[in-house]
Amino acid sequence: MIGRLNHVAIAVPDLEAASAQYRNALGAKVGAPQDEPDHGVTVVFIELPNTKIELLYPLGEESPIKGFLDKNPSGGIHHVCYEVDDILAARDHLKSQGARVLGSGEPKIGAHGKPVLFLHPKDFNGCLVELEQV
Amino acid sequence: MIGRLNHVAIAVPDLEAASAQYRNALGAKVGAPQDEPDHGVTVVFIELPNTKIELLYPLGEESPIKGFLDKNPSGGIHHVCYEVDDILAARDHLKSQGARVLGSGEPKIGAHGKPVLFLHPKDFNGCLVELEQV
Repeated sequence: MIGRLNHVAIAVPDLEAASAQYRNALGAKVGAPQDEPDHGVTVVFIELPNTKIELLYPLGEESPIKGFLDKNPSGGIHHVCYEVDDILAARDHLKSQGARVLGSGEPKIGAHGKPVLFLHPKDFNGCLVELEQV
Repeated sequence: MIGRLNHVAIAVPDLEAASAQYRNALGAKVGAPQDEPDHGVTVVFIELPNTKIELLYPLGEESPIKGFLDKNPSGGIHHVCYEVDDILAARDHLKSQGARVLGSGEPKIGAHGKPVLFLHPKDFNGCLVELEQV
């Protein structure tokens, strides 16, 4: 069912410093910051040859990244995103297997303009899983 | 400098349950468990079309995964692994940029039979980074 790994998201306490580090120390191709007000984050995409790293920084008081950075002040790996062909079929299959979908259970439009859902980390070995329909 | 994302490693408290979940709930291609006594882990590779997920489970009393699972009993994302062409050149460049290499600083042979190094998570936004020479 799951296809490509679309991205790995890393929450960072300083977006400019993290971008500079990926650009200069790790020598990667780093994009410009993009505000995603609907998701409460500012994101920077790092393009690797086979996938992307998404640096996440809180945007606004209600940001879902804020609590994560309070618990992990240095930052940390926040989630992985797997691609699926049909997000509603994937959701219904996962629910039938006992996995919990976060929020309303209805897909939202994600940072790439495509429908996304998040699965409960307790059901996936402490790993927050995003599904994106491609 | 960094190339492909070679894998994302997820530490899991129950390797069999996690493998079954990736196979059945997420519908992924899941390999057989492999013991890696030199690294103190048993690994299961999940092959995605563009990269791999590595499930990690402690092997032996000295396993580096044990402390992580003590702190994160449900499991969690443990590290990301980036490919490099020349691991010694990468290491020297990173050290010149102030990044710390874990352990002796000399590459070890990793789970894929290739030289690997780990970088200090405090220097990379709380994210443990493995470099693998390909």
